[in-house]
Amino acid sequence: MLITNKIPFGLLLSKIKFELVAIIAYSSAVGILDHHSYLEETIVPLTIPTLLGTSLSLLLAFRINQSYDRWWEARIIWGAIVNDSRSLIRQVKTFVSDPQDETAISFARRQAAWCHALGESLRRLPHSAKVKEYSSDFEHQSNIPNALLLKHSEEVRQLYQTGWINPFQQIQIDSTITRLVESMGKCERIKNTIFPGNYSTLLHFLILIFVTLLPLGLTDYSILMEVALTTLFAGIFFLIEKTAIFMQDPFENMPTDTPMTTLANNIEVNLMQMVSCPPPTLTPPTSYYQL
Amino acid sequence: MLITNKIPFGLLLSKIKFELVAIIAYSSAVGILDHHSYLEETIVPLTIPTLLGTSLSLLLAFRINQSYDRWWEARIIWGAIVNDSRSLIRQVKTFVSDPQDETAISFARRQAAWCHALGESLRRLPHSAKVKEYSSDFEHQSNIPNALLLKHSEEVRQLYQTGWINPFQQIQIDSTITRLVESMGKCERIKNTIFPGNYSTLLHFLILIFVTLLPLGLTDYSILMEVALTTLFAGIFFLIEKTAIFMQDPFENMPTDTPMTTLANNIEVNLMQMVSCPPPTLTPPTSYYQL
Amino acid sequence: MLITNKIPFGLLLSKIKFELVAIIAYSSAVGILDHHSYLEETIVPLTIPTLLGTSLSLLLAFRINQSYDRWWEARIIWGAIVNDSRSLIRQVKTFVSDPQDETAISFARRQAAWCHALGESLRRLPHSAKVKEYSSDFEHQSNIPNALLLKHSEEVRQLYQTGWINPFQQIQIDSTITRLVESMGKCERIKNTIFPGNYSTLLHFLILIFVTLLPLGLTDYSILMEVALTTLFAGIFFLIEKTAIFMQDPFENMPTDTPMTTLANNIEVNLMQMVSCPPPTLTPPTSYYQL
Amino acid sequence: MLITNKIPFGLLLSKIKFELVAIIAYSSAVGILDHHSYLEETIVPLTIPTLLGTSLSLLLAFRINQSYDRWWEARIIWGAIVNDSRSLIRQVKTFVSDPQDETAISFARRQAAWCHALGESLRRLPHSAKVKEYSSDFEHQSNIPNALLLKHSEEVRQLYQTGWINPFQQIQIDSTITRLVESMGKCERIKNTIFPGNYSTLLHFLILIFVTLLPLGLTDYSILMEVALTTLFAGIFFLIEKTAIFMQDPFENMPTDTPMTTLANNIEVNLMQMVSCPPPTLTPPTSYYQL
Amino acid sequence: MLITNKIPFGLLLSKIKFELVAIIAYSSAVGILDHHSYLEETIVPLTIPTLLGTSLSLLLAFRINQSYDRWWEARIIWGAIVNDSRSLIRQVKTFVSDPQDETAISFARRQAAWCHALGESLRRLPHSAKVKEYSSDFEHQSNIPNALLLKHSEEVRQLYQTGWINPFQQIQIDSTITRLVESMGKCERIKNTIFPGNYSTLLHFLILIFVTLLPLGLTDYSILMEVALTTLFAGIFFLIEKTAIFMQDPFENMPTDTPMTTLANNIEVNLMQMVSCPPPTLTPPTSYYQL
Repeated sequence: MLITNKIPFGLLLSKIKFELVAIIAYSSAVGILDHHSYLEETIVPLTIPTLLGTSLSLLLAFRINQSYDRWWEARIIWGAIVNDSRSLIRQVKTFVSDPQDETAISFARRQAAWCHALGESLRRLPHSAKVKEYSSDFEHQSNIPNALLLKHSEEVRQLYQTGWINPFQQIQIDSTITRLVESMGKCERIKNTIFPGNYSTLLHFLILIFVTLLPLGLTDYSILMEVALTTLFAGIFFLIEKTAIFMQDPFENMPTDTPMTTLANNIEVNLMQMVSCPPPTLTPPTSYYQL
Repeated sequence: MLITNKIPFGLLLSKIKFELVAIIAYSSAVGILDHHSYLEETIVPLTIPTLLGTSLSLLLAFRINQSYDRWWEARIIWGAIVNDSRSLIRQVKTFVSDPQDETAISFARRQAAWCHALGESLRRLPHSAKVKEYSSDFEHQSNIPNALLLKHSEEVRQLYQTGWINPFQQIQIDSTITRLVESMGKCERIKNTIFPGNYSTLLHFLILIFVTLLPLGLTDYSILMEVALTTLFAGIFFLIEKTAIFMQDPFENMPTDTPMTTLANNIEVNLMQMVSCPPPTLTPPTSYYQL
Repeated sequence: MLITNKIPFGLLLSKIKFELVAIIAYSSAVGILDHHSYLEETIVPLTIPTLLGTSLSLLLAFRINQSYDRWWEARIIWGAIVNDSRSLIRQVKTFVSDPQDETAISFARRQAAWCHALGESLRRLPHSAKVKEYSSDFEHQSNIPNALLLKHSEEVRQLYQTGWINPFQQIQIDSTITRLVESMGKCERIKNTIFPGNYSTLLHFLILIFVTLLPLGLTDYSILMEVALTTLFAGIFFLIEKTAIFMQDPFENMPTDTPMTTLANNIEVNLMQMVSCPPPTLTPPTSYYQL
Repeated sequence: MLITNKIPFGLLLSKIKFELVAIIAYSSAVGILDHHSYLEETIVPLTIPTLLGTSLSLLLAFRINQSYDRWWEARIIWGAIVNDSRSLIRQVKTFVSDPQDETAISFARRQAAWCHALGESLRRLPHSAKVKEYSSDFEHQSNIPNALLLKHSEEVRQLYQTGWINPFQQIQIDSTITRLVESMGKCERIKNTIFPGNYSTLLHFLILIFVTLLPLGLTDYSILMEVALTTLFAGIFFLIEKTAIFMQDPFENMPTDTPMTTLANNIEVNLMQMVSCPPPTLTPPTSYYQL
Repeated sequence: MLITNKIPFGLLLSKIKFELVAIIAYSSAVGILDHHSYLEETIVPLTIPTLLGTSLSLLLAFRINQSYDRWWEARIIWGAIVNDSRSLIRQVKTFVSDPQDETAISFARRQAAWCHALGESLRRLPHSAKVKEYSSDFEHQSNIPNALLLKHSEEVRQLYQTGWINPFQQIQIDSTITRLVESMGKCERIKNTIFPGNYSTLLHFLILIFVTLLPLGLTDYSILMEVALTTLFAGIFFLIEKTAIFMQDPFENMPTDTPMTTLANNIEVNLMQMVSCPPPTLTPPTSYYQL
């Protein structure tokens, strides 16, 4: 499960290349105009871009912290899915009175399918063969994972009505399913809630203002350094911004994604061992899009 | 559900236009007076507004973080409402002994109405036709959503008294309703608790002091830049402040609002599928006021 | 419930007037001594008070954040009290087998009295008539709200012993009462735990050092500005400190107080509607001391 | 319970006096060497210690925040102990079928002894007479509070086996005892987990580097101010560090300690009133070591 | 359990020695080139590295805070394991109807083995003799701790089926086991989730840029100080980074590790006392790898 989620540096750079070109052009223009003394009226003290840069750093530090929290919450949710999947199968296996191994196996298979289905839904991918096998009954439904959990509950109801579990046990299993519903809903919340648009725009806008002001404060230095420093700072702030943007959406088929396929596979291996079944045949993920 | 919640830039600007005009006037006056050497006694070192600006940035960064937390909490609460709505219907559907589809449908309809009613109450809007249909019995009540949950509980009691659910199941459903009561109360708390007045005033006041001091520290530079920088910084700090204010009240019919109509519609579609009913006829929101 | 909790500006100013007068005197003295060149040995670079000011701003920003968290926690607790009060009455009303409206009314009245009693205890006010009516039986007890919750539990026990609720329902109601005990204890914790004395003293002490150093760094400027800026910064830091102090104690009969009377009244109206009783006669709070 | 937890200023100063003397000696040496122009090669721009000071302030601000969180968590845990002690006695009193006042009194006495025992264990103090009375049966055990909770559970088991409580009630009381076990374990965690050693050392080390650099940046100013400012900043940073250290260990017999004796006494008074017993005879704490 | 988790200073230094050598070489080269006036075009104002240093400090302060949170969470989880182990044995001991001491002892031994097994799994160490004794039945399983908890549940099932515990008690014990499953899963989450790669890389990259820029801003000062200060700041920032890296992975056989062996031993002593067994023979950890 230990997976490097580094974004290739080239990918990051390609995302900000147009901004960087524009900034080089602008800062060169400032340098040349200043060299010919056209900018005497627009010189600013270096303290001014510094103050703005400090404000901006603060806001970006908080921003990257909020993105980290979303990324970490996504891992916490999937950790809870691991736990509740195990608890569900443990409960089914040790509650059903008649040592009905098939019951436990049936729940374990459906639960593994649910994990795969949830990951695929969050990534807006077509459902895999494993999931389709289980979802054939409710193909018309828009929310397959929710339908699978409902199916769990319907089987629990039958176990109760045939007397294979007692009412206490039905309620205890129902509580576990309720926690799985909650984890599913939390994933959907993170997936569907975009970071507040205005807040993002504000930060991008402040970076642009900073980059506009910085060359006007560096007119005492060589054009080379003025252009280099402006581009460098622009690059740094854009990089911080992009790092935050990559982390804040942990279900978007990106390299920093939560490794849901890997996690679902691990859960499947675990559940199969718990019900003494042979391990599933897993195809290793071929790229980070399938982690 | 993926909705851009950007505030049109024009809207934001229109909110701070009077302040900006006053600031341009003030900083121009400072520039002109200084040009005629009337201000020699009031020059301040640029370090002073810089220190104030750093303090202010810190407080604003914490402030925007607190606003973000309120906004995010509102989404978490509505996420919990999604989860508990699904759990409620799943429990009703799989607990009631006689396969009484009508019971599940009746709860699903009332629960969907509750979601709409809660959104409308929080926005202080008149209740829609869908809600009124369910609330006709308790029109004299001031809190329609609370009355709807009480109605749920009363039906659960009848199911128990007629023997269609056992006492365990009554308690389990009651726990789900209790969580819905909690989500409702949390929404009301965020709606009704204004951000501490003094804290807000303090920040606004600090921005004004900063803007007053800044031109006195820029007297060595051209009037043009002095006015431009003062207005720019005033604009930036006001913008950060307004962004915080927009985020901190997530139930106020604003563009950054929690999209409660959309969420309630989604819940309704989900619940109808769970009880195998045709999907509801939804009117798409025509503006962000109905998201 | 939407209440402005602004502290009148005059009140704030009156709290720091002695400090401000002392600071004006001190900074004037520094200005005059410096004017006569007595202070050449004690000039400090402006960077030094700036560094101290930055440290101080950081600590104050964290401090105000901690105060905000206490204030917000107080609101969360009272929000939970609203929720659990409603849940308690809903449970009593829909659990008691014989449709005993009197039982629900009796619990609703006692619960409303409990909310008022808790608010009054936290504010160290004498109990109102409404509360006294219910607390006559246990006047010798030091903790009236706790005694009222015990009374709830004793009535629940009687309902159980006469067979009007089943053992499941007794436990479910007991869990709600346990949550009310927890909310009560949390309020007492916030009320009784003073902010760490050393931490507060440290911050106050740092403000004084900053104010002492600042004039020594401004000796190049006019006496007028030196005095004005010192007083201004002293005022700003004291204001931030006072704002934090006002927020950190949310049950102290202050304008920023949690509006417990209003909340208790709202709970009472809600509960009365739930048990179909006429609304209580409420006296509107006449000042913020009764919010 | 409202207790000033100020550390006497003298105590604090005595903790850092050796460091301060060393710093005065070092900065005086720098001043004198510089006065004789031996240090021309080692002058640093004041910006450098300022940058380090800013970094250091940031880390210290986060550090003091983490210490505050530990201190506050200790209070939250003891708040939960207050709540669960009350809930336990309320449950015992209203669950036991035969109105057996002795049972409730026996639990209340043991619970009060548990609170005292926990406080004494956390402070590594010998157990008081009150506790010894209850712990005579399991003197060989290393964890007396844990043994007392086990004793609670064993009595609950007897109540169940003699039919004085039903199985539901046994489980509900067991849940309360489980919460008490959790609070006890949380206290032990805070007590036994020292703050990460490297993190502390890093901060102390950074303060020393800052103090070493600062005089080298102040060579343009009088020796008097150079020594005074260096000592002042060293004192300030050490003071912040010590304040953090005092707060981070809230069970160490220090003035900022959680007032566990006072809290245990208050719980005892509460519980005795709940079971209608005369209040216990309490000896007021004679120093903060017994708060 | 009170264990110093200091990393030997030499270890830390050895981790960054190559970077430091490279930095000394680079800054010396800059110094020498500047001394011969080859760098007039590349001088930067010291404000620029200062601004970058401030940004960097902010990001590092947040970063070390996030690492601290992971480290602290690991301790919270193991604290919960202590609590739930005690609760489990207390419940088994006081629930089983026939005073079957062997049952309690059997659970206590298996639970102690589970604690050791979990610690060893997290550290990727071969299982100790104590654990192997219990895991012989399911050697083919990849997750021994999970198998042990399943074994617990299977014994609970037998207790229920032979009538030695009632259904309520089965569910209550099952809830405790579910919490142990959750703690296990949380440990696995922290173990398996690496810190976001891009975020780490970004910070390392910013340190390098800062170190590259700093000498270019110090060209006015002696080569000695230029090299010394650059190396010093590089060392400080690398040290902060390494401290964060050491704290963020609390299950990696490092000196700052969670002392899982010590905790598991303590739990074992506790559980043995609870079931009146002689204390286990413990081998004291010989190095921090076995803490």
